[in-house]
Amino acid sequence: MSDTIKYLLPENEIPKSWYNLMADLPSHPSPPLHPGTKQPIGPDDLAPLFPMEIIMQEVSMEREIDIPDPVRRIYKQWRPAPLYRARNLEKILDTPAKIYYKYEGVSPSGSHKPNTAVPQAFYNAQEGVKKITTETGAGQWGSSLAYAGALFGIDVQVFMVKVSFQHKPYRKALMESFGAQCFASPSDMTNSGRAILEKDPDSSGSLGIAISEAVEIAATNDDTKYALGSVLNHVLMHQSIVGLESIKQMEMADDYPDIIVGCTGGGSNFAGIAFPFLGQKLRGGSDIDIVAVEPAACPSLTKGQYAYDFGDTGQMTPLVKMHTLGSSFIPPAFHAGGLRYHGMAPLVSHIKDLGLIDAVSYTQLEVFEAGVQFARAEGIIPAPEANHAVKGAIVEALKCKKEGKSKTILFNLCGHGHFDMQAYTDYFAGKLTDMSYNEEELAMALSGLPSV
Amino acid sequence: MSDTIKYLLPENEIPKSWYNLMADLPSHPSPPLHPGTKQPIGPDDLAPLFPMEIIMQEVSMEREIDIPDPVRRIYKQWRPAPLYRARNLEKILDTPAKIYYKYEGVSPSGSHKPNTAVPQAFYNAQEGVKKITTETGAGQWGSSLAYAGALFGIDVQVFMVKVSFQHKPYRKALMESFGAQCFASPSDMTNSGRAILEKDPDSSGSLGIAISEAVEIAATNDDTKYALGSVLNHVLMHQSIVGLESIKQMEMADDYPDIIVGCTGGGSNFAGIAFPFLGQKLRGGSDIDIVAVEPAACPSLTKGQYAYDFGDTGQMTPLVKMHTLGSSFIPPAFHAGGLRYHGMAPLVSHIKDLGLIDAVSYTQLEVFEAGVQFARAEGIIPAPEANHAVKGAIVEALKCKKEGKSKTILFNLCGHGHFDMQAYTDYFAGKLTDMSYNEEELAMALSGLPSV
Repeated sequence: MSDTIKYLLPENEIPKSWYNLMADLPSHPSPPLHPGTKQPIGPDDLAPLFPMEIIMQEVSMEREIDIPDPVRRIYKQWRPAPLYRARNLEKILDTPAKIYYKYEGVSPSGSHKPNTAVPQAFYNAQEGVKKITTETGAGQWGSSLAYAGALFGIDVQVFMVKVSFQHKPYRKALMESFGAQCFASPSDMTNSGRAILEKDPDSSGSLGIAISEAVEIAATNDDTKYALGSVLNHVLMHQSIVGLESIKQMEMADDYPDIIVGCTGGGSNFAGIAFPFLGQKLRGGSDIDIVAVEPAACPSLTKGQYAYDFGDTGQMTPLVKMHTLGSSFIPPAFHAGGLRYHGMAPLVSHIKDLGLIDAVSYTQLEVFEAGVQFARAEGIIPAPEANHAVKGAIVEALKCKKEGKSKTILFNLCGHGHFDMQAYTDYFAGKLTDMSYNEEELAMALSGLPSV
Repeated sequence: MSDTIKYLLPENEIPKSWYNLMADLPSHPSPPLHPGTKQPIGPDDLAPLFPMEIIMQEVSMEREIDIPDPVRRIYKQWRPAPLYRARNLEKILDTPAKIYYKYEGVSPSGSHKPNTAVPQAFYNAQEGVKKITTETGAGQWGSSLAYAGALFGIDVQVFMVKVSFQHKPYRKALMESFGAQCFASPSDMTNSGRAILEKDPDSSGSLGIAISEAVEIAATNDDTKYALGSVLNHVLMHQSIVGLESIKQMEMADDYPDIIVGCTGGGSNFAGIAFPFLGQKLRGGSDIDIVAVEPAACPSLTKGQYAYDFGDTGQMTPLVKMHTLGSSFIPPAFHAGGLRYHGMAPLVSHIKDLGLIDAVSYTQLEVFEAGVQFARAEGIIPAPEANHAVKGAIVEALKCKKEGKSKTILFNLCGHGHFDMQAYTDYFAGKLTDMSYNEEELAMALSGLPSV
């Protein structure tokens, strides 16, 4: 077996500002539209849902936005996150490629999500907010916001997609351990939840539905705001800390990535690792390929349309231009619950449209096979979402082997799988299957895209 | 909320040698005896079970034993482990005490156990061993050895105490993810397992029974050795890396503990944090109180006899002098499976007998209450075993509050609870109870102690 090679920054190297890709783009994404007027929305339209500081970040064109000191001090609990070279995996694959991975599973909730949960809770606390609602898929985001809420004394209410609620009951226990409440969605607590249950009492839920429920409660209660764990610009910007640290760590390794790989659901961990490097490329400093890996069963970037659509199933959010499978599309119940979203972050969609990134998709079984291979080589059991990035990195490394090229691959291991062991249990028992969506349902969902 | 204060050593500060308390003790523990002859055993008696290097460490009187380079390089995957000041907890308790904790949950299996699993696998690999058997309670040790076995290409077979096997199915999945096999104990694979099942087909198992099964397979197969995750001197010595790092980190904090707290099952995480500090005290360098915290339902240090006893229920191991509840004692099925052992490490027992440490016990509900309080304050959900140390530290901090004293408390947060969420789920649902042992069963087990 090979040595562990870990690149660990000292604490004072935690970045002092986030990076905003908007500042370096050759063109900007189309603006969000009001669902009624179809006109671009302004800050006031978002004020019922978000604190003003976050709204300003959402539309900022500044390249660097200061990380508030209290946030930076909380980041120290788990940051800087380690970056490893996967020497054992390289050996097993017998590849001339060098494989590095940034490991975000060291956070309190076990993924990259606290990177944005903490500042979001901070800005809400600053504006006196007492309660935040949110949705969660696999529960990574819900437990992260629960943790951040506990730190700032904010009540957190989480709507968890029902199939994940059933698959991953221990994520609920973790949220409760941090003092939050967690409900299966669709629930009978909201109009949007009840509407879904009326049509289909056995609905397994979706992120789109859970967003509707959380937004509805925030929009109809004065003391309550809403937080989103991915998709929006400010969330992607908070995650840039992942890539900013990785840039310094690749310097420590005296290396630079030729290829960056991340998994994509809403787009936040992918943006986190990729955007700071992409910024360097756009400023003329480097040449890299960037690959987004998505589940074949929910392939917004590879099979979706680039169009204006609602962020939620209940059609309450603004219209955003993104790669979408249609807001009524309900993905099959595969285990990577964090990737079961019908749309893609507008910023990620925009750079895909500009040809700045590639996208590929893999099925459930092939990503679990990759995850187990990684666990045995590197000693970390990845979350099902992260298995997509592992698979993407392995594919690139084997390509290098075939071509006899020694490229440098960096991927984001965005979370551990400690709360996903039922999926691994099923995988080892041969019970996991390659789920795919229904073509007719997808066509119908796409035909229902709003006209703008 | 308060700032995170984390003391993180640079990688080159990972200790280069382990610390052996034997070198500094005023007197030494009584030697292990052969179960047949009742004479002290020699290295040859242990050779069927352990590689010679480990046997020599078991009897060493050297103060420092070099950590082999390959082991130290693997340690880098998660070491140095962070030491935190629990500022939020201090605030919530409103105590003048300063509370620090060393966090060992950052390892691949989520506890301190890989600290000894890696060197044990290394020494076995060095001597050409192809297969190792072991027992596990909660599964922390089994998954750690599974991880270490994967690194060195050694097959690992784990006998997991049946009640934990049922409570914590995902630990089995983790072991399988690392390529190991895991069986519920008592099993029908061994004579000792079958003997128990004959008497009680519904036996919930115990560490003592699982040890018998693992030892039996190693003793009767030439290509197979056995590994123990606690109790023995060499295991405690490997864990000294926890305390050695903590000494340097307390220096970084410009502070020194007045009180050290650790939970005790077999004794290894407790010894890990306490022995290096105790060594300083014995060499005249400091004055500290050391508190061992055990479950009220399996109270070897507080209710056991200090006597020669078997390490296993099947009475196959050497006789060791220790605080014991009797090798036939089967503890009730509380959730801290890693603390469900009838005996205590001979070295820990010896220093308890010398009056160098104190011991206290707490019930299941009070330790879970402490664990949840800690999780909400500090953002880390402790393993049920670690909750005992949390409770012990909180009790000391509240004592300081009452007495108006600003003492410095250091405890070992030996693992996270990610694989123990059913216990938390039960706790929140009000289903967790204070389990206690049956007095008559304890008396009977104690009456069966072997005469020496």
